[in-house]
Amino acid sequence: MNAWQHIFKLDPAKEISDEHLEMVCESGTDAIIVGGTDNITLDGVLDLLSRIRRYTVPCILEISSMDAITPGFDYYYIPMVLNSKEKKWMMDIQHQAIKEFVDMLEYSELLFEGYCILNKDAKAFIHTNSYLPDEDDVIAYAYMADKVFHLPVFYMEYSGTYGDPVLVEKVKAQLEHSLLFYGGGIETVQQAREMKEHADVIIVGNRIYTDIKQALKTVKAVKDS
Amino acid sequence: MNAWQHIFKLDPAKEISDEHLEMVCESGTDAIIVGGTDNITLDGVLDLLSRIRRYTVPCILEISSMDAITPGFDYYYIPMVLNSKEKKWMMDIQHQAIKEFVDMLEYSELLFEGYCILNKDAKAFIHTNSYLPDEDDVIAYAYMADKVFHLPVFYMEYSGTYGDPVLVEKVKAQLEHSLLFYGGGIETVQQAREMKEHADVIIVGNRIYTDIKQALKTVKAVKDS
Repeated sequence: MNAWQHIFKLDPAKEISDEHLEMVCESGTDAIIVGGTDNITLDGVLDLLSRIRRYTVPCILEISSMDAITPGFDYYYIPMVLNSKEKKWMMDIQHQAIKEFVDMLEYSELLFEGYCILNKDAKAFIHTNSYLPDEDDVIAYAYMADKVFHLPVFYMEYSGTYGDPVLVEKVKAQLEHSLLFYGGGIETVQQAREMKEHADVIIVGNRIYTDIKQALKTVKAVKDS
Repeated sequence: MNAWQHIFKLDPAKEISDEHLEMVCESGTDAIIVGGTDNITLDGVLDLLSRIRRYTVPCILEISSMDAITPGFDYYYIPMVLNSKEKKWMMDIQHQAIKEFVDMLEYSELLFEGYCILNKDAKAFIHTNSYLPDEDDVIAYAYMADKVFHLPVFYMEYSGTYGDPVLVEKVKAQLEHSLLFYGGGIETVQQAREMKEHADVIIVGNRIYTDIKQALKTVKAVKDS
């Protein structure tokens, strides 16, 4: 996973044709994340899982709801929202899940992400009662993810909007151990390259549904650069 | 620090004579923590620091108030209260401190402790708006401290009351990397030995002020066992 550069994120609440799904899975991307915020159902997750499993690409479930978890994924990513105002979204839900499932957990398959949601209009932002951190807040969260909590991933989530490459660069300079994931608003090859200059991994989601050809081009863009 | 077994904790808000302080510092304990909950002032901390510094024992400041921090200690321990109901006491105060001091931080001197406060009548418990976790909650917190946050220390704080050795044993079995600190209500050699059987380090505090001779005996008790 330390060599990953590009991930596609598929939303189980959105439709995707078999043809487009095949393009995504065979694109050369390093992995597919299944995840979203609204209307995530077990049926939707299972449907995507079974369809992605026809291909060899690694397949990850990003857990947003305890009701939509199933075995069969290669990895499970568990977001901890660092800039939520509530401890609930930072660690209490995760704590209750661990309490319930501790005996079943194969720890190596689980990966806890330090999430920082940076678009105040995003559904995930509102849903988790987050606040918009200033630049120094974000850098201090990166410090905590990296040096206090030793999380494998610090995830800057601009969720549908294109973020600030200067801040992404500053955050990257702060991280010694955690990988930097960037997600949000990547629509062009140029944007993919710009964010990949600083982030370890870029995540492309929405573009799959609005312009599959542009979305596919982001893979080669970051792999060649 | 991985070889430590016994720590004395001195409260800057409590009086201690030079004679007793010398006994504590020369007792063979592995370190002295300066820390408390109520009436912690910079003057009180500085006074203890200068007096402890006459001896060679490692000296740690456990930070409970941003107003009472000073250079000069060997280590700084920063509690993160896992069972507080508020994100504030788990990570937000710490985040703001990092934001303010990030350029001055010499990370190696800082140690973040995963705290679990287990006495509902303790001042620290009330002050941090904590809830009393059940056994499985505590074990799941230990799991998180150890495997999610990779904290160097998981601290079971019974604060003035003697805890449950069976739970301490269960928690110890959960930890792979984090050291287990036990604090609270150790008054006798027998209690020191009982908790040390499972905890990596026991912390003796109040007993220093109520019976210095018994307190001193806890050092040899755990070192010999």
